[in-house]
Amino acid sequence: MGHNSMTRDAGNLSIDHDRLMESIDRFARIGATAGGGVTRLALTDEDKDARDLLAAELDAIDCQVLIDDLGNMRGVLDGQTALGAVQVASHLDTVIRGGRFDGALGVLGGLEVLRTIRDHGIQPARSIELINWTNEEGARFEPAMIGSGAALGTFDADWMRARSDVSGVRLGDELDRIGYAGSQRNRPPVGRAYLELHIEQGPVLDDAARPVGIVDGILGITWMNITLTGQAVHAGPTPMPDRHDALAAAAETVLAVRDIGTGAGSPCVGTVGRLEVSPNVINTIPGSVRLGADFRSPDDDGLDAMVADLAAHAHDIAARHGVAIEIDRFWTSSPVAFDSGVIEVIASACEAVGVQPVHLWSGAGHDARYAANVQPAGMIFVRSRGGVSHCEAELSDPEDIALGAAVLLHAALLLAEDGVSAANDRG
Amino acid sequence: MGHNSMTRDAGNLSIDHDRLMESIDRFARIGATAGGGVTRLALTDEDKDARDLLAAELDAIDCQVLIDDLGNMRGVLDGQTALGAVQVASHLDTVIRGGRFDGALGVLGGLEVLRTIRDHGIQPARSIELINWTNEEGARFEPAMIGSGAALGTFDADWMRARSDVSGVRLGDELDRIGYAGSQRNRPPVGRAYLELHIEQGPVLDDAARPVGIVDGILGITWMNITLTGQAVHAGPTPMPDRHDALAAAAETVLAVRDIGTGAGSPCVGTVGRLEVSPNVINTIPGSVRLGADFRSPDDDGLDAMVADLAAHAHDIAARHGVAIEIDRFWTSSPVAFDSGVIEVIASACEAVGVQPVHLWSGAGHDARYAANVQPAGMIFVRSRGGVSHCEAELSDPEDIALGAAVLLHAALLLAEDGVSAANDRG
Repeated sequence: MGHNSMTRDAGNLSIDHDRLMESIDRFARIGATAGGGVTRLALTDEDKDARDLLAAELDAIDCQVLIDDLGNMRGVLDGQTALGAVQVASHLDTVIRGGRFDGALGVLGGLEVLRTIRDHGIQPARSIELINWTNEEGARFEPAMIGSGAALGTFDADWMRARSDVSGVRLGDELDRIGYAGSQRNRPPVGRAYLELHIEQGPVLDDAARPVGIVDGILGITWMNITLTGQAVHAGPTPMPDRHDALAAAAETVLAVRDIGTGAGSPCVGTVGRLEVSPNVINTIPGSVRLGADFRSPDDDGLDAMVADLAAHAHDIAARHGVAIEIDRFWTSSPVAFDSGVIEVIASACEAVGVQPVHLWSGAGHDARYAANVQPAGMIFVRSRGGVSHCEAELSDPEDIALGAAVLLHAALLLAEDGVSAANDRG
Repeated sequence: MGHNSMTRDAGNLSIDHDRLMESIDRFARIGATAGGGVTRLALTDEDKDARDLLAAELDAIDCQVLIDDLGNMRGVLDGQTALGAVQVASHLDTVIRGGRFDGALGVLGGLEVLRTIRDHGIQPARSIELINWTNEEGARFEPAMIGSGAALGTFDADWMRARSDVSGVRLGDELDRIGYAGSQRNRPPVGRAYLELHIEQGPVLDDAARPVGIVDGILGITWMNITLTGQAVHAGPTPMPDRHDALAAAAETVLAVRDIGTGAGSPCVGTVGRLEVSPNVINTIPGSVRLGADFRSPDDDGLDAMVADLAAHAHDIAARHGVAIEIDRFWTSSPVAFDSGVIEVIASACEAVGVQPVHLWSGAGHDARYAANVQPAGMIFVRSRGGVSHCEAELSDPEDIALGAAVLLHAALLLAEDGVSAANDRG
């Protein structure tokens, strides 16, 4: 890596903290909620307004704005060479009554990086590109991360355009309506590296009293539906030993999922978030319960082991309660470990900024997941107060935001110079 | 009690088994379901047809039919004296896709008692009355047992008429529509005793391999809503020790209810039949859970002790999970112990019939509950195969039904002669 001299040069650079916070405030007014949050669902009028504002801000610093056929926006700060670019990316869409920082921090932190580079008259060796992905949240169109997934080869573009929201409105029609269906030629090319700045959405940094984290990867996820079927009979006349109580069995299964998640050790988790009881009448012994379990692990074998452990426990629980059991592992997303070279660069950037980072895994999915399939990728997390996100109370401190954006700036600049002399030698 | 001579006389009497089973089949065709059950909701056209048929059958054996202002029907087989009558009673309404026996067995077993008495040209000292109560199930109009409750002083008649079903149709209007709003003068008077023959709706007799049970009383019931409030955050990024998982706490509470029900000993039970999770999304830690718990006990102190035990456990569980808890004990029905004299008479009737009964408590509510408030009451249970009820699969064997009806006949006759000589002495 040829970035040592750059580290020393870049050490003097710093982002404009007030300007970044003003940007965050300004974008948070687009779709602002009474409770201090933001509702800016993908491809709504609010999303269009945010996109238009981003395009205007990029134009103001002489960065070309390219829109691909999936609505993904890309602002290009040209480098001195045609070598693969460095991409900094996130998303401007939110969930319903979401927060001001989830997604917006990465896009507006990236905008601040480009502004800072322009302020200092720097032209990096590689281009630096800012990407705003379409429909990251999946809150309007399922699945989540559909824009990055389609641009980077996981989803088909026609399939993506055909997704519809709860009102039956199609994603493709909404792209056309707001004027953000661009050209396939403009899809983000594979570059040198991909960086994503994001709030943590968990309490690890807050618990550790550290402002910034380096993300080692994104946990693998597996989802299961477990159906327990007993006998729905009148609660009053049925003695305890005669029961086939699907909810009692489900309760033990919920606790088994928790115990397996705990036993697997951090960063593994196990959760039952969804549980439905039938017939759900106070004086009828539940005849069936369907629950959804979520396990996460940094490796595939770990996921498989958690699933196998649960299956063994659940079958034993079902047998003890005299209920039938069906387990359907219906979806798995493999873990993604980020590129060790990019992780090293982010660590160097932290050093340049003077921040001592925590290494952690991301328990939530991010567009970086798909980017990592095609090029070296990494993520920088900023502390979330209390670990809450996807709600109006989502909060990151301005000081932490400034540090995270500074790390992003230095990491982007380091990567923008990386391998340039070697490439020139080869050229 | 002056029934010893009567026991010897009545020992020769027997009900007409085939006629009783034909009646049950005939009534089961009114509202018959494809699955072999019956849907005959209170005050529907089907209920009217069943009432009309019952009235015709009573008329055919020269029993006067009286309808009160609450729709309760009463067929009177006149005794030789004006002493308080013996009432045999149950109901002809069913739940949706209910069985052929719940309720119908008591009414048609009672009809068979009257027919048998007529066949043998017996005129008992006291009148024997057959009652069909309005809306016992509560499946159309809540609450259950409203006709007996209103006739016997627990509910107000105007309030009863104002109850409406899920479509907003009022009970009183339906009474008028089907022509069963009679006169307040016809409300069942307080008599010598009240008898109700019913299927068990539980597995106690089936487990004990006995056809007939004598009911010692109806368990007290208490219902609680328990609300657990944690923090609904993203499951992936939230380490296990940082969670405030309302469903994990609820799962332990469900198991505590079960353990308390078991620990209190038969016939006590504890059940969570209803449980709702919010936001109920597979990858969000449940922020709140509301569950409904049902405890039953033969004595009030036992009920209170179960509630206190659960409250202590649930507060401990909530504290361990870092969730808030609210417990609302919103409804209690005190236990009712049946009259020891009536229980003795039923035991004598069992002896006369040659059946060895099991003594048990009813875990379900019955109209006999309200009857016991105003006069000596008792119940006879007939074995339910598998203990199932309120479903199409509900089944009692014809032999068991015949034995149950024979016990009802003998108990009614014993009570119809009871105290007559003493009263005559006084008169």
